[in-house]
Amino acid sequence: MSEVYATRRSRLRDHFTAAGTTAALVTRPANVRYLAAAAPQGSALLLGKREDLLVCTGPPEDRPCEGRPDENLRLHVLPPNGVGAGAGAGGDAALAAADLAVAQDADSLAVEEHHLTVARHRAITAVAPGLRLGDLGAAVEQLRVVKDEEEISCLRIGAEIADQALGELLESILVGRTERHLALELERRLVDHGADGPAFPTSVATGPNSGRRGHRPTDRRVEEGDFLTVCLGATYRGYRCEIGRTFVIGTSPADWQIELYDLVFAAQRAGRESLAPGAAYRDVDRAARHVLDSAGYAEALPPLTGHGVGLEIDEEPQLAPSAMGKLDACVPVTVEPGVHLPGRGGVRIDDTLVVRPEADGGPELLTITTKELLAL
Amino acid sequence: MSEVYATRRSRLRDHFTAAGTTAALVTRPANVRYLAAAAPQGSALLLGKREDLLVCTGPPEDRPCEGRPDENLRLHVLPPNGVGAGAGAGGDAALAAADLAVAQDADSLAVEEHHLTVARHRAITAVAPGLRLGDLGAAVEQLRVVKDEEEISCLRIGAEIADQALGELLESILVGRTERHLALELERRLVDHGADGPAFPTSVATGPNSGRRGHRPTDRRVEEGDFLTVCLGATYRGYRCEIGRTFVIGTSPADWQIELYDLVFAAQRAGRESLAPGAAYRDVDRAARHVLDSAGYAEALPPLTGHGVGLEIDEEPQLAPSAMGKLDACVPVTVEPGVHLPGRGGVRIDDTLVVRPEADGGPELLTITTKELLAL
Repeated sequence: MSEVYATRRSRLRDHFTAAGTTAALVTRPANVRYLAAAAPQGSALLLGKREDLLVCTGPPEDRPCEGRPDENLRLHVLPPNGVGAGAGAGGDAALAAADLAVAQDADSLAVEEHHLTVARHRAITAVAPGLRLGDLGAAVEQLRVVKDEEEISCLRIGAEIADQALGELLESILVGRTERHLALELERRLVDHGADGPAFPTSVATGPNSGRRGHRPTDRRVEEGDFLTVCLGATYRGYRCEIGRTFVIGTSPADWQIELYDLVFAAQRAGRESLAPGAAYRDVDRAARHVLDSAGYAEALPPLTGHGVGLEIDEEPQLAPSAMGKLDACVPVTVEPGVHLPGRGGVRIDDTLVVRPEADGGPELLTITTKELLAL
Repeated sequence: MSEVYATRRSRLRDHFTAAGTTAALVTRPANVRYLAAAAPQGSALLLGKREDLLVCTGPPEDRPCEGRPDENLRLHVLPPNGVGAGAGAGGDAALAAADLAVAQDADSLAVEEHHLTVARHRAITAVAPGLRLGDLGAAVEQLRVVKDEEEISCLRIGAEIADQALGELLESILVGRTERHLALELERRLVDHGADGPAFPTSVATGPNSGRRGHRPTDRRVEEGDFLTVCLGATYRGYRCEIGRTFVIGTSPADWQIELYDLVFAAQRAGRESLAPGAAYRDVDRAARHVLDSAGYAEALPPLTGHGVGLEIDEEPQLAPSAMGKLDACVPVTVEPGVHLPGRGGVRIDDTLVVRPEADGGPELLTITTKELLAL
């Protein structure tokens, strides 16, 4: 297993040495975890001239839930002198790593300028004035886009857990319960079924709130006749998936509810069916968006209809009108169009799928809960 | 109520204009919320030359739980074109705000270099090349240290909620339940009693895990004879408090448990009793630390014995050996010494208190759950 991490680091090293840099400093937690198997709080990863070091602000065994660092990697634990989370976790480790880079005779260091703060960057220049600082850019994020089967397997287990939690909720009585309670109940079930925790704050939206992307649960109670939109995900071994479904409460959905549901369903299907290696991100977005657009919902549409998932819940690619790039095989993405009508509510349907070539059966659906309109 | 926010902004303006800057850009979410009453995701606050603007990436009414922005503040909502959380929330708003600063004829802009990334800083330079960028430093964090009675009242309510949730847990059967379950149960109860949510991930630590600061709950079950350490907090209207207690499971604590508990209790009391306006941060830390130190636990000690709380769970001041500065009245802090003995477990006792002058009765204890050693 640990060769995986060494291989990833070696690919990154190829990248920054080709760009003329001797060493690299990785500070974004999901990137550290991707390359080191673990990202203890406040840690920084140095890919040095002579060896790679994971710099931690405390012994990683104090935080077993954050994963065990790759054994091929040397650990460098900083002494605990007045480290405060308020002072900005990770700062000491980044400075110490820059110092260690110099000790390895590095003359240049690529840093993650999109993650490192200006203050930290200045501090590195101050502790290591001889070091030429460059930009690693989103190199690690780019490596992370295409997943290996081990990573996909973690996403698949996470999706099963989310499906189970959602399935159990649907068997319980919903009317009269608040959005907040339902969300907490779902999060408890995720953990019951083996998740590390929720992949993101669980969203439960009823009545006029339904269909809203990222709605934070309120004290509104489920009522007869409501749309109920639920969006949740599990984190499993660090990997995050998501599923979203909309239901109707009571025995007979209103006509407008059935129409809106069928429309969003058609849009979501169009998005799913357009997932293929080589498909442009914007074309997948357009496939889903076009269905809603031509029904007159252009105004109500979200900025994106899907996104990559992995060690973060929202990573590259973005399935959006202005996104550049094409899908590869083994890229997991969400397809999640929705329509929200102010004052009335709406529908959102969200799956996590893995892009696969047609020869392998086409896109692999990880979140298998039914997308029929259930009346609960 | 909204004058509070205008007054805060005006104090900040005095600060940066005195430092020779025309305008300021605030991006750290807790700082935006402090000055604008709300910090919609991805928002940035511009204190401009002619007027103040809250720049949002979407209408704030889409996120009612994040608070309503101060009505005296002009909102500037960006069009939703391909904004992706993965691309770094807040980026578009920061760039737009810099642009708006220029439109107001500002020639210089103080930014939060400890929050703004290097990449964003460069992007601002690119969109507004005529703008001289300075550093706002931790000016807003410094304003936030001393709380007004409205803020303290939010902390007090949060502490009551945490006390209630903890009190209810103690009435239930604990043996056989896992750390994860107990933590989830506590978080559900926090929300039941009116919290916005937990102030930080609830920590439940049993047996050998007990006494560990920031322990993440595992699947270990509570056993007879265990120490059980619980650390939780509620967020109420954005304000975060914390409480930590250690209990013993079963009818008769072992001698080492009673001894260790009494010692940590004495340390925590010494820390609490040293809280007074004018007391040096390091002296409060030393008061608590000294008790543990002289009992031979110097090795087992954490880097800090307390910290400020407010819109963030860990803010200034740090009560640590190398901290510089003195307490003021109306500063809420935690006092939370603990000892963890590897393989055996330990004790941690944590209160949130507000520094008050002796004439007002001395430090105000917000978290009032008993600190007697309860055998459950």
